[in-house]
Amino acid sequence: MTKQQRLADYCARIEQVLAEALPTHDISPSRLHEAMRYSALAGGKRVRPSLVYATGEALSIPVKILDRIAVAIECIHAYSLVHDDLPAMDDDDLRRGIPTAHKVFDEATAILSGDALQAFAFEHLSEPMEGLPPQQQLRLIRVLSDASGSHGMVAGQAIDLASVGRGLDEQQLEVMHAHKTGALIRACVLMPSYCDEQLSDLQRSQLDRYAKAIGLAFQVQDDILDVESDTETLGKQQGADIAANKPTYPSILGMSGAKRKLDVLHQESLAALDEFGPEADLLRHIAQFIVQRIK
Amino acid sequence: MTKQQRLADYCARIEQVLAEALPTHDISPSRLHEAMRYSALAGGKRVRPSLVYATGEALSIPVKILDRIAVAIECIHAYSLVHDDLPAMDDDDLRRGIPTAHKVFDEATAILSGDALQAFAFEHLSEPMEGLPPQQQLRLIRVLSDASGSHGMVAGQAIDLASVGRGLDEQQLEVMHAHKTGALIRACVLMPSYCDEQLSDLQRSQLDRYAKAIGLAFQVQDDILDVESDTETLGKQQGADIAANKPTYPSILGMSGAKRKLDVLHQESLAALDEFGPEADLLRHIAQFIVQRIK
Repeated sequence: MTKQQRLADYCARIEQVLAEALPTHDISPSRLHEAMRYSALAGGKRVRPSLVYATGEALSIPVKILDRIAVAIECIHAYSLVHDDLPAMDDDDLRRGIPTAHKVFDEATAILSGDALQAFAFEHLSEPMEGLPPQQQLRLIRVLSDASGSHGMVAGQAIDLASVGRGLDEQQLEVMHAHKTGALIRACVLMPSYCDEQLSDLQRSQLDRYAKAIGLAFQVQDDILDVESDTETLGKQQGADIAANKPTYPSILGMSGAKRKLDVLHQESLAALDEFGPEADLLRHIAQFIVQRIK
Repeated sequence: MTKQQRLADYCARIEQVLAEALPTHDISPSRLHEAMRYSALAGGKRVRPSLVYATGEALSIPVKILDRIAVAIECIHAYSLVHDDLPAMDDDDLRRGIPTAHKVFDEATAILSGDALQAFAFEHLSEPMEGLPPQQQLRLIRVLSDASGSHGMVAGQAIDLASVGRGLDEQQLEVMHAHKTGALIRACVLMPSYCDEQLSDLQRSQLDRYAKAIGLAFQVQDDILDVESDTETLGKQQGADIAANKPTYPSILGMSGAKRKLDVLHQESLAALDEFGPEADLLRHIAQFIVQRIK
């Protein structure tokens, strides 16, 4: 099976395990559950679950454990998008080519569905898990809550909102991204890594280095696509960052500088995997996908 | 020491452990951390932490473990108030006599501070805990996430929002309250109960019965005070429920019917504690406080 096929299989897998895990709309309150499913099952690139499965593959972690981690992380990611799109935040009408949750439902339902998705992530991760000692399971919850909260993802969104209309230099932009998306992307490799008791601290820190590099590369490519792609391909408004006067890599480094940075980050992510053999090929493939994607 | 003094001591204790546990505003992003502290440290009756400490006292649970539980629950409670007060939800300007978070900060910061408080609750509960096996610690996270999410507290708020302007009968009103506030109040006794491995299922279910009764009693008294008290005493707008055309116990049962119901629930909560001796006196005292409170 090619790496592309394996990745596609994992993407199909996360759709299925998410659909099975989330409460269905025939359970009360149905509108709330419908909104949770609408946002969590709206597709997307599934980069985070892919990273979970690819890291787990590199470390031979049982796939049932990876399912749990992937579902929990994707629910945190989905809730953050729902809240970020709210009128009081980025005020976006379109996400992944379809109307945002507060447009389809209403603002109150969107807020509540996000809140419930966050609670669900921790509930899902705290259910008895075969093949993983409780001590390690607790560690997973600790890593995810830390990555999601006021030192991680939520901090990033707060820094982002505060930066609109102000100039950020490259370093400040990097700090913002390291929190807003970087923290959760690092959790995607760190959480499976904590399921492997044999893993050395050095190997774990190399996986973390890989995740930091591709997390930032993802943002640089996002900024490039915001300039060079179009609304239909992106599934969201092209040029939205520029229109919102948000600092971006092309605006700070110029387009060729941004593309050079993307290449440096790609090389850095591959170098971080030097310790690993072909078992990490899917991680290498994801790094390539991230810098070459067109949407 | 009188029961009143012990309760006051626990209320002082939760203020202190909350203040120590929450990130301070000198840590970036400072505005976010300031908003988290503003809402979590805004006082209030601290009914939930009191229940945690009183249950822990009845079962001789180490107070350091109770601190963790109390902080986590109070952060979930605080986040729910911040989100419930938002313009898209109940649109309240005043809470506990002071302006609501979105009035002091802004809507985006209010939403994010709520999100971060929820993540913090689970982070705080997943940190290594002396004297409690990891298996039981996982159980605490499971109970809290279940009580907070789309089968518990968030469900209650969704049902509440959907009920505005519609008629609810007594049973539907009870279902709403059982979720909106009941689920978290039950967690206040269930979480300490799961720290006691010797506790029988019968004893646990009696504690749960106590919590169900006082949780609902709290709401009945809330509805009574909304009619009979005044804005200054309440620290929030008197008559707000009537103005919003929300169904209440006095509106469904009449004022004397609501007061009879309050008394029945009080007796029910005391009967549930028959299995317990004087070690549960503080729980009995809290039940009395809840039905006699004037704000």
